[in-house]
Amino acid sequence: MSTRHATPLLATLAFAVSSAFAQGKHTETPPAPEPKPVDPAEIRYQAGSSPLKDAPMHQDVNPKAPAMSKTEFDQARQIYFERCAGCHGVLRKGATGKPLTPDLTLDKGTEYLKVFIKYGSPAGMPNWGTSGELTDPQVDMMARYIQQTPPQPPEFGLPEMKATWRVVVPVDKRPKKKMNNYNLENIFSTTLRDAGEVALIDGDTKKIISIIKTGYAVHISRVSASGRYLFVIGRDAKINMIDLWMEKPDNVAEIKVGLEARSVDTSKYKGYEDKYAIAGSYWPPQFVIMKGDTLEPLKVVGTRGMTVDTQEYHPEPRVAAIAASHYKPEFVVNVKETGKILMVNYTDIDNLNITEIPAARFLHDGGWDASKRYVLMAANQSNKIAIVDAKTSKLVSLVDVDKIPHPGRGANFVHPKCGPVWATGHLGSEKISFIGTDPEKHKAYAWKVCEQVDGQGGGNLFIKTHPKSNNLWVDTPLHPDPKVSKSVAVFDVRNLKAGFKVLPITEWAGIPADAAGRVVQPEYNKAGDEVWFAVWSAKNQQSALVIVDDKTLKLKAVIKDPKLITPTGHFNIYNTQHDVY
Amino acid sequence: MSTRHATPLLATLAFAVSSAFAQGKHTETPPAPEPKPVDPAEIRYQAGSSPLKDAPMHQDVNPKAPAMSKTEFDQARQIYFERCAGCHGVLRKGATGKPLTPDLTLDKGTEYLKVFIKYGSPAGMPNWGTSGELTDPQVDMMARYIQQTPPQPPEFGLPEMKATWRVVVPVDKRPKKKMNNYNLENIFSTTLRDAGEVALIDGDTKKIISIIKTGYAVHISRVSASGRYLFVIGRDAKINMIDLWMEKPDNVAEIKVGLEARSVDTSKYKGYEDKYAIAGSYWPPQFVIMKGDTLEPLKVVGTRGMTVDTQEYHPEPRVAAIAASHYKPEFVVNVKETGKILMVNYTDIDNLNITEIPAARFLHDGGWDASKRYVLMAANQSNKIAIVDAKTSKLVSLVDVDKIPHPGRGANFVHPKCGPVWATGHLGSEKISFIGTDPEKHKAYAWKVCEQVDGQGGGNLFIKTHPKSNNLWVDTPLHPDPKVSKSVAVFDVRNLKAGFKVLPITEWAGIPADAAGRVVQPEYNKAGDEVWFAVWSAKNQQSALVIVDDKTLKLKAVIKDPKLITPTGHFNIYNTQHDVY
Repeated sequence: MSTRHATPLLATLAFAVSSAFAQGKHTETPPAPEPKPVDPAEIRYQAGSSPLKDAPMHQDVNPKAPAMSKTEFDQARQIYFERCAGCHGVLRKGATGKPLTPDLTLDKGTEYLKVFIKYGSPAGMPNWGTSGELTDPQVDMMARYIQQTPPQPPEFGLPEMKATWRVVVPVDKRPKKKMNNYNLENIFSTTLRDAGEVALIDGDTKKIISIIKTGYAVHISRVSASGRYLFVIGRDAKINMIDLWMEKPDNVAEIKVGLEARSVDTSKYKGYEDKYAIAGSYWPPQFVIMKGDTLEPLKVVGTRGMTVDTQEYHPEPRVAAIAASHYKPEFVVNVKETGKILMVNYTDIDNLNITEIPAARFLHDGGWDASKRYVLMAANQSNKIAIVDAKTSKLVSLVDVDKIPHPGRGANFVHPKCGPVWATGHLGSEKISFIGTDPEKHKAYAWKVCEQVDGQGGGNLFIKTHPKSNNLWVDTPLHPDPKVSKSVAVFDVRNLKAGFKVLPITEWAGIPADAAGRVVQPEYNKAGDEVWFAVWSAKNQQSALVIVDDKTLKLKAVIKDPKLITPTGHFNIYNTQHDVY
Repeated sequence: MSTRHATPLLATLAFAVSSAFAQGKHTETPPAPEPKPVDPAEIRYQAGSSPLKDAPMHQDVNPKAPAMSKTEFDQARQIYFERCAGCHGVLRKGATGKPLTPDLTLDKGTEYLKVFIKYGSPAGMPNWGTSGELTDPQVDMMARYIQQTPPQPPEFGLPEMKATWRVVVPVDKRPKKKMNNYNLENIFSTTLRDAGEVALIDGDTKKIISIIKTGYAVHISRVSASGRYLFVIGRDAKINMIDLWMEKPDNVAEIKVGLEARSVDTSKYKGYEDKYAIAGSYWPPQFVIMKGDTLEPLKVVGTRGMTVDTQEYHPEPRVAAIAASHYKPEFVVNVKETGKILMVNYTDIDNLNITEIPAARFLHDGGWDASKRYVLMAANQSNKIAIVDAKTSKLVSLVDVDKIPHPGRGANFVHPKCGPVWATGHLGSEKISFIGTDPEKHKAYAWKVCEQVDGQGGGNLFIKTHPKSNNLWVDTPLHPDPKVSKSVAVFDVRNLKAGFKVLPITEWAGIPADAAGRVVQPEYNKAGDEVWFAVWSAKNQQSALVIVDDKTLKLKAVIKDPKLITPTGHFNIYNTQHDVY
C-alpha cells in the first residue's frame, strides 16, 4: 500500500501513437492531424465488437466509389462492425470518431484513407495496419468500404421483439414467497462478460449461488423496486429476468429488444413498484417499455430526431443509460447522439407523455444525487455533466468537467466544505470532480465543480462510496500502465487533498503477472463495510473477485473459481435497488 | 335548383378502370387484383406532383436490380415524384398505394411491374400507359426504377430553415395600429393554386384587396389569435406571414420549413396569443415551432417512429393537419403514417413536453367540436375519426365512418335528436356522417355516428355550416360527373332526412361548359348570412368566386377577375381565427 500521484495517461500513450505514425513517413504522406485528440482509453472502451457484425445487410453499389465484390463488402462490413462502428457509428455518421459518409470519404480517396487506417493518427485513430490487427489487403478493402453507401442494419420493432419473448416460468407458477434462505439484499450479480453469463454470489458466505446463461457481455444489472426481480441486459440486447424468490434463483422471462443495447431499469415510483421494465437500444435507436413481471413488450418509442445544438436530423441516436425516478412516475432516458434526456412518464403508457430535456451530445451514464431529486448524467465526449431536476422535469445546469467523464452512477458524500456532492471520474484524465448538489444549504457550491483532485490516472470507469463509509474508491481498468490498471485508489473524503492510497488488488488476488487482471467496479456490500472488486483477465486467463475491509483497507477475501470467466463488474442487490452510491 | 339523390362514385369509375385493364388482356397476363380498392377520387387527390421532384438525390445501384443509367434514373425519379410519391410515399414504403421497396418489387420482376404500370389495376392503380400519360419506354423505365434502392431526399434542419428565413418588415417597423379601413374580420384569404399566390378579398365589398406571392399551391390559411396575422403555407413548405394592419396588407416574414408541407397554425391559448407559430412537413417528416411575430425557427421535432398498431418503425410519417387548442397551451399535431396525434405543450419549448395519443394510421384533417374541448381528426385511409379530449390529452374514441372521410375542419350544429354533432363527408362515398359530441346531455349519442345521410356522391372535400344558419353545405369537387363537381348540395339540419337541394354554382357563375369549374370549399362570411364558393378551373380557363345568400339560397354575387387563377379554396378571417365551423 503506497501513496502515489497521478500518472498522466495521454503522455504515456502519445509516444506509442506518434512512433507508429512516424513509421509511415518514408513511404506515404501522412494526413493532416485531426483537430480533437481522442483518448486511447476511450478507444479501448468504444472500439469493442458490435453484435451487428452478424446482422444481414443489403449492399448497394455507390457508382462513384471504388469497386468491391459482394464477398469483399461482407468481409469489410464485418470488420467495420467489429472494429469501427463503436466510434464511427452504425451508419458512419460519426460519434467519438469522425463521420465516414461517402460525401466525405469519396473526396479523400482510397490512398489517403489507407494511410489513416494503416498508421492511425495522433488524434486517436488506432494504427490498425502497423499494429498488426489488419493486413495490407484488409486496409485496402476497408478504405474502399468506407466510400460505399453505409448499409443499414434491420429494424427491430414489436413483432421482432415478440418473436424472441419467452416467459420461462409464468407468473402463477412462481413462488408466492421467498423459497430460499439467502440474504437477498446482500447478493451480488456479477457479469461474466465473455461467457455470456451472470454469477449470483452470496455476499455473506462469498459462495456462488448460481450461474445463469444471459446475453453476451451483460452491461448492467438492475433490481425491481421490491427487490425480488433482477434484470440483466447483454450487448446483444437480450434481457433476462431472474426471480430471486426461487429456491435457486433463475431466469423466469427473457426477450431480445434490438440488435445492440446497453440499458435496462424498472419502475420504482410509489404505486408502480415492479410494474414496468424499460430497455434502451443502441440499434435500432429506440427504447421499449415492458410488463415488469413478464417482460411482455408494450410500447416501443423511437429516438431518431434532432440534435440538441444544431437541430439537425440524426439517424442513429443511441439510448445510453436509463434511470428510474423515485420522485415521479418517470424513467430518465439518455439519448446519446442527439444529447437529449427524455423524462418518460409511465402513468399512462397508452397516451405516453415525454418531456425532452436539452442537455449535450454524447450523453452516456450517470445517477441520482443523495436526495434522489436530481439526476446527473455525463455527456462524455462533450466533457459535461447535465443535471436534471426530477421534480420539475427541467434542466438545472450543464457543468463542465474534465476529459470524458465516466461516472457509472457516480458517488455521493458530504464534502467538508461544499456539503453534499456527487463525484465523477474520467476516462480521459486523472481528475476526479466533485459537484455540489445542495442548492438549499450550500447554494454557492451547488451545480458547480467545487473541488477537483487527481487520481492514479485516466482510464477510470467507476467511482464508489457508501453512506456509512468515508472512503471514495476510484478504479482505472483502462489505464495503459498495468500497475495502475491492476490497483485501485482510495481517498478519505474528509481530507481529499491528502491524496490517495493505492491497493494492489490484483496482486492480492494472486493473479499471474502475465494475466490482464484489470481491477473494475468497486461495489459495496449492503452493510457498507466491505468493498468488492472484479479482477478482469482475458477469458483464457485467471480472474477473481477481491473483497476489501472498508475500515482497515485490508484484504478480506478472494473468490476464485474456474467458472468466474472475465468478470467485468457486479451489482449489490440492495444498493442497486435503492440507488445507494 | 333540384332535389337529387346520390350518384355512386365507384360505379361510375369502375367501368373506366376495368375497360382500360381489359385492353391489355390479349398481349400480357394481368396481375391478380389487389385486396383493397383505392378510390379514384382519392387518387386524384393524392397523385399530385410533389415538390420533391426537383430535389437532388444520390443514386445507389442495387446490384440485384435491372440496370439503369444515371440519366434514366434521374428521369424516372422525377416521374416518380410527379406521379407516384403521393400514394406510394417518398421512400416507397407505401401509404394510400402499396409499398414498392426492392424487397417486394425485385421478386415481381420488370415484366410483371410493367403490366401494372401500363394498365393499372381494378384496385385503383391508374392506367398510366393506356391513358397516354406514360410512353412504353417510360413504363419500362419506371418498372426498373422501382426495383432500385429508393433514393432519399435531403434533410432540412434548423440551419437550412434559417438560410431561407427572411423578416421582410421587422417588428418595430410594423404599424402600431390598424392602418387601413378594411373590416379585417370579414376578409377572405383565397388560394390561387397554380399561380403560387393568395388573394385577399374584402368580404363586404367583394373587391380584391391585394394579391400576394406565396409558395406553390397554398394548402391552408390560418389566423393568429389576435386576428392580426395571416399565415399561409405552400406545398413547397414555404410559409408567408401577412400583416393585416398594414395600409395594404402584405408579407412581413417568410421561411421554408422543409421540401414539402401542408400545415401551419399559431398559438391560441390565453397568455400565448400570437406568441408561436407551428408548421408540419411531409418531407422531412417533422414539425417546427417558430416565433409568432417573425417566423424565426426555434425548435424542430422529428416524427419518425413507430406505427400505432404494429409498433414498427416508419421512416416517413408525414405531418398532416395541425390544430391550436383553446383549452390548453397545446398544438395538436397529426402524424399520418404512424397514426399518432401529438399534443405538443408550448409552455416551455426548451423542455418540450409531448403526449403521444394513439389514433389510427393515415391521420389527415379535422377540427374542434363546438365546445372546443374535443378535437376530431380523420384517419382517412382507415375510415375512422379519432376523438381526443384536449382537457385530459387522452383518446376518447375511434369512430368508424364511411370510406375515406375528409372533413376539412368538419361542421358543428345541433342535431334535433342527437344534440351537438360534428359532421364529416367522404372522398370515397356519398355518405355524410354526424357524430355526437355532447357526453353530458346527450350521452347515448356521444362519440357515435348517430345519423348518416347521402349527399350527391363521393369526391367531397369540404362540409360547412355556421352557428347562425340551419344550412349544411357539402361540396363534391373531385366527383367524376361534372354535374356533381360543378354544383353543391345543401341540407336543412332541422330535417336531414328530407334530402338535399342542389345549387348549380358553376352555371350561375357563367363559366364556359368546357372549363373544369369544380365547386370547392363552402365558406361563411363573418355574419353567417353568405356562403362563398371557389369555382376552380384549370389555369388557362376561367375561374370565379360565387357568393350565395344563406337564407334564400339564391345567387348574391359572382367575383371574376383575370388574376383569380385556379382558386381552390378560401378562409374567412374571423371564422378561421375563432374556429367557427
